[in-house]
Amino acid sequence: MKKIIKNAIIVTMNKENEIIRNGQIEIEDNLITYVGVTRESDGDVIDAKGNIVMPGFVNTHCHLAMTLFRGYAENSNFRNWWMDYMRPLEEKFEVDDCYYGATLGMLELIKNGVTTVADFYLHPEETARACVDTGIRTNIAIGAITGKEILSQESLAEAAESISISPLIKPILYAHSVYSCDESQFNELNKFAKSNGLIKSTHASETLTEVGIIDNKYSMTPIKLLESYGFFDTPAILAHCVHCDSDDIETMTQYDVTVATNPSSNLILGSGIAPLYSFIKNKINVSIGTDGAASNNNLNMFKEMYLADNLQAGVLNQPRAITTIDALKMATIRGALALGYDNLGRLQEGYLADLIMIDVSRPNMQPLNDIYNNLVNACESNNVIMTMVNGKIVYKDDEYYCNADYRDIVDHCNKIITRIDNK
Amino acid sequence: MKKIIKNAIIVTMNKENEIIRNGQIEIEDNLITYVGVTRESDGDVIDAKGNIVMPGFVNTHCHLAMTLFRGYAENSNFRNWWMDYMRPLEEKFEVDDCYYGATLGMLELIKNGVTTVADFYLHPEETARACVDTGIRTNIAIGAITGKEILSQESLAEAAESISISPLIKPILYAHSVYSCDESQFNELNKFAKSNGLIKSTHASETLTEVGIIDNKYSMTPIKLLESYGFFDTPAILAHCVHCDSDDIETMTQYDVTVATNPSSNLILGSGIAPLYSFIKNKINVSIGTDGAASNNNLNMFKEMYLADNLQAGVLNQPRAITTIDALKMATIRGALALGYDNLGRLQEGYLADLIMIDVSRPNMQPLNDIYNNLVNACESNNVIMTMVNGKIVYKDDEYYCNADYRDIVDHCNKIITRIDNK
Repeated sequence: MKKIIKNAIIVTMNKENEIIRNGQIEIEDNLITYVGVTRESDGDVIDAKGNIVMPGFVNTHCHLAMTLFRGYAENSNFRNWWMDYMRPLEEKFEVDDCYYGATLGMLELIKNGVTTVADFYLHPEETARACVDTGIRTNIAIGAITGKEILSQESLAEAAESISISPLIKPILYAHSVYSCDESQFNELNKFAKSNGLIKSTHASETLTEVGIIDNKYSMTPIKLLESYGFFDTPAILAHCVHCDSDDIETMTQYDVTVATNPSSNLILGSGIAPLYSFIKNKINVSIGTDGAASNNNLNMFKEMYLADNLQAGVLNQPRAITTIDALKMATIRGALALGYDNLGRLQEGYLADLIMIDVSRPNMQPLNDIYNNLVNACESNNVIMTMVNGKIVYKDDEYYCNADYRDIVDHCNKIITRIDNK
Repeated sequence: MKKIIKNAIIVTMNKENEIIRNGQIEIEDNLITYVGVTRESDGDVIDAKGNIVMPGFVNTHCHLAMTLFRGYAENSNFRNWWMDYMRPLEEKFEVDDCYYGATLGMLELIKNGVTTVADFYLHPEETARACVDTGIRTNIAIGAITGKEILSQESLAEAAESISISPLIKPILYAHSVYSCDESQFNELNKFAKSNGLIKSTHASETLTEVGIIDNKYSMTPIKLLESYGFFDTPAILAHCVHCDSDDIETMTQYDVTVATNPSSNLILGSGIAPLYSFIKNKINVSIGTDGAASNNNLNMFKEMYLADNLQAGVLNQPRAITTIDALKMATIRGALALGYDNLGRLQEGYLADLIMIDVSRPNMQPLNDIYNNLVNACESNNVIMTMVNGKIVYKDDEYYCNADYRDIVDHCNKIITRIDNK
């Protein structure tokens, strides 16, 4: 049965940045078949009652199961946080802990209007199970997750096979970083990427410490080292990129490289503020990630989009260095393109029906003088009243519509934390 | 009838930073009479169901009626925003427009867990009416609001009288800034402050432009100029303080001066990032304001508290430069002290019953590994499920309990905007 969303303010994010008032969206199966003004049409009607409908957020960098460790590491920089807190905790993990942690993270994302997430973490097959149970579109990392894995074309093919259990899942190739992985691992990824047409990702230039370590070992920057590994020969997503110099930026412009910026994680760990304005002025594709809730400490794309935009203004003393429409694109269409989707991140005919509804009747959205400005600078995750992925409503009016039971998942997660703390 | 809140995680914010699990708060009239573990007691019971109860936020710098202009000024620095956008709009104001704008702002604040606000804007008697109708505790500015007012002891006494219509209201003396007001206005305020024991406030060192203008005219900084006016001889709140040098900071330590930081407004207008870490290390009292929604673009103390804390870490490359408990104090007790209350901003016996309840069952607060960290870095305004001011519940579970009708106020505000746009 066709689904029809009526009486919406449609923020299409299409090439013309069109906003349609009194708009209608029609959905058949998992695809959008009509976007325009409200018209007569048969189907299941969802009355938007004048609220905003826009593409769901695309979160290009997350570590979902780390939601278990929300708020665990006060007072730590990135290196302490990873080596002294996260690694020891992760060693206490049992395999299906990752299922529960990932599911909790996904339920938070869905409630916050995220319809696609790229996840980089241990036990990808557990993340795949969580995806099936929550219904969020997921790109799941396979490769050198901890940095220690020995990779081969066979091991990558097996890993890809092990997570291929839903049309919502796509693999993304991953090596943790240039400081935890070596050239042979990057080479295997590059080869697999070329033969299978897959996107690759890694952490790059997150901290000054990382830049120092790589300089000491290789006499070059992390970006230049990745170039020398051939990592940019096929499309790649670089998470963080906080400390990129002009040469790095010039290098990045030569390739199909996307930055996945994680502004709140970079603030809390004292990593710094990424030069997004320079990236955008140099026409480098910028997308947004939440990073994991253990260094953040929530999974809120409204917060990240707000920070990605406004930190540049504050640091550069340049109001609206990044426009609100650019910020929205970073959080939607630019992330979708980075993850290899050519029909996601916009509301237009033929695109995947991944969309959210935003309640504009609440105080923080009134008056609605400027839609883009309100969405970036005033809207909060609680304004999301409906989330649809692949044509299916997964969240509406404080209720989830999926196989995961929220209370049950929270109980499991708290039991895991108790077990790990006592171990 | 006594009110009893049972089964709460009480974040007391008392001198010992005590957190009481399975806690109980008892309230008689407008005061807290017991804070401790849950016990038998007669009264109206509110079951907190394991949620957090903490002091309501104290917002020390706001321009409430400007909520009407939410999102109005894209692409402008502070000077353009004020001169080209706000001033012309304000000239189109009718007196009671300020009532509707202030009421909308107060309803947003109440929903977001703010129980006290200091407001600096036109037509203070309209703000007073709004306070009575919404039930939020309000410090209302009288003095040189636009900068153009001629002040006298009589005019100040009259203005103070005109807003004294509720025990929730206290006057705060105000001159807009050193660039819009002159020495005679500051002198009148100083005199009135001394004879009436009132707190004073002004904008100071918000932008580099302001510092330049004052340097050009007086060959000193705004802080030094204020000192020369005797503005610091009695307790004063300085809004913004983004561009204070070491001499300014040294000067400020000599007096009873509080900074009201407005981090999101300073970001969006490209004003910069205030040196809060230096203020705190130098033992200057720091409180938090939202500023007005026209430069912000919402009234959300969770956002401001998060930014006040984490921007320092990001800019200084120093994780947790400000601790989460310090951030919470800035948003509560330190603001209360600044505004001249000696029994507000903590949950303890004898204090005013201004408090909020935070739903910890939602995904963004689970697991609750670290209460302070979750409150500052993961909590959002939508987690507020109850707001109590002066012993009275003004908001609970998405319903307001006050004289203002939210839908009616929104309709009025939209009519005002339509009228102003067409004028």
